[in-house]
Amino acid sequence: MIVVLRAGCTPEQRIALVRAIEAAGLRARVSEDHHRVVITVGGDEDRIRGVSLAAFDGVEKVVAFKKPYRLAAREFHPRDTVVEVGTDGIGGAHLVVMAGPCAVESEEGIFAAAEAVRAAGATILRGGAFKPRTSPYQFQGLGKPGLKMLRDAGRHFGLAVITEAMDTRHIDQVAEHADIIQIGTRNMQNFALLKAAAKTDSPILLKRGRACTVEEWLCAAEYILNGGNDRVILCERGLVSFDTAVRNQLDLSSVPLVKRLSHLPIVVDPSHGTGRADLVPAMARAAVAAGADGLLIEMHPKPKAARSDAAQALLPETLAALVPQLHAIREIARGNVAELPGV
Amino acid sequence: MIVVLRAGCTPEQRIALVRAIEAAGLRARVSEDHHRVVITVGGDEDRIRGVSLAAFDGVEKVVAFKKPYRLAAREFHPRDTVVEVGTDGIGGAHLVVMAGPCAVESEEGIFAAAEAVRAAGATILRGGAFKPRTSPYQFQGLGKPGLKMLRDAGRHFGLAVITEAMDTRHIDQVAEHADIIQIGTRNMQNFALLKAAAKTDSPILLKRGRACTVEEWLCAAEYILNGGNDRVILCERGLVSFDTAVRNQLDLSSVPLVKRLSHLPIVVDPSHGTGRADLVPAMARAAVAAGADGLLIEMHPKPKAARSDAAQALLPETLAALVPQLHAIREIARGNVAELPGV
Amino acid sequence: MIVVLRAGCTPEQRIALVRAIEAAGLRARVSEDHHRVVITVGGDEDRIRGVSLAAFDGVEKVVAFKKPYRLAAREFHPRDTVVEVGTDGIGGAHLVVMAGPCAVESEEGIFAAAEAVRAAGATILRGGAFKPRTSPYQFQGLGKPGLKMLRDAGRHFGLAVITEAMDTRHIDQVAEHADIIQIGTRNMQNFALLKAAAKTDSPILLKRGRACTVEEWLCAAEYILNGGNDRVILCERGLVSFDTAVRNQLDLSSVPLVKRLSHLPIVVDPSHGTGRADLVPAMARAAVAAGADGLLIEMHPKPKAARSDAAQALLPETLAALVPQLHAIREIARGNVAELPGV
Amino acid sequence: MIVVLRAGCTPEQRIALVRAIEAAGLRARVSEDHHRVVITVGGDEDRIRGVSLAAFDGVEKVVAFKKPYRLAAREFHPRDTVVEVGTDGIGGAHLVVMAGPCAVESEEGIFAAAEAVRAAGATILRGGAFKPRTSPYQFQGLGKPGLKMLRDAGRHFGLAVITEAMDTRHIDQVAEHADIIQIGTRNMQNFALLKAAAKTDSPILLKRGRACTVEEWLCAAEYILNGGNDRVILCERGLVSFDTAVRNQLDLSSVPLVKRLSHLPIVVDPSHGTGRADLVPAMARAAVAAGADGLLIEMHPKPKAARSDAAQALLPETLAALVPQLHAIREIARGNVAELPGV
Repeated sequence: MIVVLRAGCTPEQRIALVRAIEAAGLRARVSEDHHRVVITVGGDEDRIRGVSLAAFDGVEKVVAFKKPYRLAAREFHPRDTVVEVGTDGIGGAHLVVMAGPCAVESEEGIFAAAEAVRAAGATILRGGAFKPRTSPYQFQGLGKPGLKMLRDAGRHFGLAVITEAMDTRHIDQVAEHADIIQIGTRNMQNFALLKAAAKTDSPILLKRGRACTVEEWLCAAEYILNGGNDRVILCERGLVSFDTAVRNQLDLSSVPLVKRLSHLPIVVDPSHGTGRADLVPAMARAAVAAGADGLLIEMHPKPKAARSDAAQALLPETLAALVPQLHAIREIARGNVAELPGV
Repeated sequence: MIVVLRAGCTPEQRIALVRAIEAAGLRARVSEDHHRVVITVGGDEDRIRGVSLAAFDGVEKVVAFKKPYRLAAREFHPRDTVVEVGTDGIGGAHLVVMAGPCAVESEEGIFAAAEAVRAAGATILRGGAFKPRTSPYQFQGLGKPGLKMLRDAGRHFGLAVITEAMDTRHIDQVAEHADIIQIGTRNMQNFALLKAAAKTDSPILLKRGRACTVEEWLCAAEYILNGGNDRVILCERGLVSFDTAVRNQLDLSSVPLVKRLSHLPIVVDPSHGTGRADLVPAMARAAVAAGADGLLIEMHPKPKAARSDAAQALLPETLAALVPQLHAIREIARGNVAELPGV
Repeated sequence: MIVVLRAGCTPEQRIALVRAIEAAGLRARVSEDHHRVVITVGGDEDRIRGVSLAAFDGVEKVVAFKKPYRLAAREFHPRDTVVEVGTDGIGGAHLVVMAGPCAVESEEGIFAAAEAVRAAGATILRGGAFKPRTSPYQFQGLGKPGLKMLRDAGRHFGLAVITEAMDTRHIDQVAEHADIIQIGTRNMQNFALLKAAAKTDSPILLKRGRACTVEEWLCAAEYILNGGNDRVILCERGLVSFDTAVRNQLDLSSVPLVKRLSHLPIVVDPSHGTGRADLVPAMARAAVAAGADGLLIEMHPKPKAARSDAAQALLPETLAALVPQLHAIREIARGNVAELPGV
Repeated sequence: MIVVLRAGCTPEQRIALVRAIEAAGLRARVSEDHHRVVITVGGDEDRIRGVSLAAFDGVEKVVAFKKPYRLAAREFHPRDTVVEVGTDGIGGAHLVVMAGPCAVESEEGIFAAAEAVRAAGATILRGGAFKPRTSPYQFQGLGKPGLKMLRDAGRHFGLAVITEAMDTRHIDQVAEHADIIQIGTRNMQNFALLKAAAKTDSPILLKRGRACTVEEWLCAAEYILNGGNDRVILCERGLVSFDTAVRNQLDLSSVPLVKRLSHLPIVVDPSHGTGRADLVPAMARAAVAAGADGLLIEMHPKPKAARSDAAQALLPETLAALVPQLHAIREIARGNVAELPGV
């Protein structure tokens, strides 16, 4: 940790800081140059967290070195984590495609969707039973009956299933029916929900909050890892955008950045990431080229009849045409770890 | 609702749209000019929500007119709502100042803070018992014992108290101890929590999500109002910022905008809104000048010893000097509703 | 154009609007439903631009249909534009790779860079002579002598060259030495410079402003097209980001979006788009997979000795390894225009 | 300057860094703790700017201490700068109000506006002759004749005038006619224009770029100061926003932040800052409460007939009612420098 002092700080201010650092059992080394006094703190930064150096008089900024997450960090776990789901290994050599409607709308509808997902060559079926919606007057999902329909459709067509949990009181119910529990973007920092997810045995797909940094995202993953569940899959789904031409601003640079910082697998949701079906195939290809381990894509057999997010759902035939391209790009994109300058 | 068609749309595409609109029991009127075909939809927009016009071929954009919230809208409730808390009426003529530490840290500490809050002329005591923290290794709050300490300190000094609820399973406990339940920025779209808050009798202070529009915020308020609790107080606390000189970007334009769109009271948190104690007084004054009904300010008797957010906590004497200025500005800012052009 | 009135607007307000519309020689049709009065304006929107409907009493919003750009729009020019530069056709079947140092630093340096660019299989050499720098104390480029060195290095190795113009007074000088004139991100809305660029015969590479929408970008291109120069190449280079882990937030969704809205070629700059050499190869691959027609990549023979932007420069060997991958992805990504739902 | 190394860096990497630092004539001190190796660089940071430490192998981040601006910094110029314009001192005790139409539209119009500005108690007249417009098909201003009309109207009513310069080739012309030259938000980093402005004797009002940090803004001011013109007035005018309810997101925290970092005067433009006349008065009051030295407000005698930005122009009577409130708030807001914790 480094404490940078303001120009014009007084000797008394320096002394107060040094005393506080030493009182925490750490070492303080003061350096002084042309324009700045800097105090380098030696020892374990955690010991100083209870002392708020930033609130001391004369401090300009405090730069911490220790990352706020550990179990999620590649430096403590160099090898890629592979999360096994059904016959897939997410984070392994093969690309995993998850697809399906935004919401489970009926038994018939989810079975038709599952059939199309399977026919397109995807292996995991998505569909919401509990739906987070901006307005209380929008369709809120079928709830528990929807969970059962989803599971049945998945089983019938040999697909693993993924669905969202929104409430600590429902997470066991979701865990019982689904192969992967999704934590949605609005709940990325719902810490009660993260702690509850950590208590299940299920893989957790953790979507990035739409205005959260990669570091905050890895800290959210850390809540789950630290709570005892090491089967975390990250999912990039786009950031808030000032350009209303797209629903969200899909941040594909998070893919190689996460690969650099963490060992966890990462997938991309180009459907929410753009909000427009006409942009989804291009962005799905781009996600794989950037190094994503999988995709989460909205597909609806009849988008015009969808009860939510119709504008971003692919037609089954579009998905079917896309999947082989994605696998071909995966072949090219993999195995480029040696391209870092000087590493 | 208006459906704008792409240049080059076909007659078949128009016909399919008109049929879908009419099948929903609505009227479709097609207009055609130089460059665009536009279909105006007559009747209640809610009837068309199950039909996804945006997914039809040839559609460029769909513009809806009906607001996604109702009970929160000023057009259906023209008079200002005043939420009574203790002897204060939030949203009434007088400015309400809530202050206190980020977190309840000890019985002694919260009593000292309460005394300073009262001495400064504020009337409501804030303090977190359940703390949402980015990293699991940061101080998570004292939990239930903290709730009790906060309540006791408030009672002792004749202050109402406000604290945050983070989990549907704890909300009744919080309701029992606090005069106002806070929903934090990270939980603004935690819809399970909003629905649980609606079931309590407590006033709910709803912080704005750090990347949420005012419309999304009013929709979140609508979840509480629609669930049966009409005592909602909005709290602006800053948006995500690309400028790291501040922790958040405090959006004061939301204050007059909320006053225009809604009847709900609105307060401002300049502490999280800037993250810097040296900017808090100026932004507190600005918030009141913009029309805020109250302020939520972090103050700590000993910021250097604070276990969280020390850099943004005011000293007691700074708060005491500030409060009279805020009341003086309130006098000037109130009663300017007639300034809208042409209204 | 549609004018949506506020709930509670008066008959007088409607009449004033209708009169203003008719006075402009247009048709006004009033529709009234449950909650809203809407006026549909018939005729050429341009005739109403001198009348500010938004300033009339009782107006909630005005929705215009006509795009603010024309010559750049695909609807008026359906076929892809190909800009010929040397032996390359930017926007044609083949991917075009432009590479080189941030700045021309010396004759020796730019010759070494040109040699490496050619060896890597790229065909256009980049390098700044006039450098836009945040602080006046940073290296501002070599100016005119730098232009000459760049041109000489390009000629020697059979590479076309691209460099930036920053001032209307220098643009002819730049046009004389370079095969492509770059307009930088900070100057995307420097309308005097755009008009001056329109007067040259050179291809113009127009970088996207770091907080500009795609529509604003196409409007900037329109200034050049409308001024008489139809050789415009768009260049996505990343948007302002709240996440400081990257220098900019590279928006690859702009690539398929531009392809949808415009006929102009688009290239991507993953170097400024991320600011980190370790993320550049992944993002370069992703850009091509998203449909980019070319790339603009910073490469420096000795990044540690670079006078600007060293952290984002690739080593020559990294670029050489990357180029064949990019061409392979181009093969997969091209020719997917039929994937739009319902088109 | 501090160089933080990656976990797992090698001894060779450290040695290479130390050698490079020492080769630049600086001191390198290596510290090593639990998790991190840190090199503290002693001596004048400017000497290392030619060496790109960030590009060395094994470097995680480089933290510089020296600010990239100097003449603009309060630490080198503690007292407030007051820029004299006519009889006003911008940055002094009194609030300065500048008002007028977006554009000069006719001689008659600008005279009517000037009369209203004077009647409202404002002292400086604004109006654009060269207008930066997103689309080339929008009204571009009257150009040189507009400059003359503006000056004449100002003289007639005893008002100083401010207008924008957009092109290095026009700046002398603007300097000849106007009392203050405005550099617009889109040109904040048009460095050729900044350097040209530095060569004039005129006060320069420098608007903040809509996605620029306060540090970047002060660096832009530094270009003018460093070029020889010390009469710089900063103008906050709002940042890019994801919430389309407002045109821009007005950042009032920049006001106290600039006061902290710099001695330059700062004014606020609430008209562009919100884009909505109904929000302007509240935000004007808030700006003054935050500490702004002046305001730049759009007012039009007949907003409905305005050729640009009609929706954000105040009526003359609204401005007249607002000005006394602003002066009253100024009285309260001034003189609060002692409120910083511990300063």
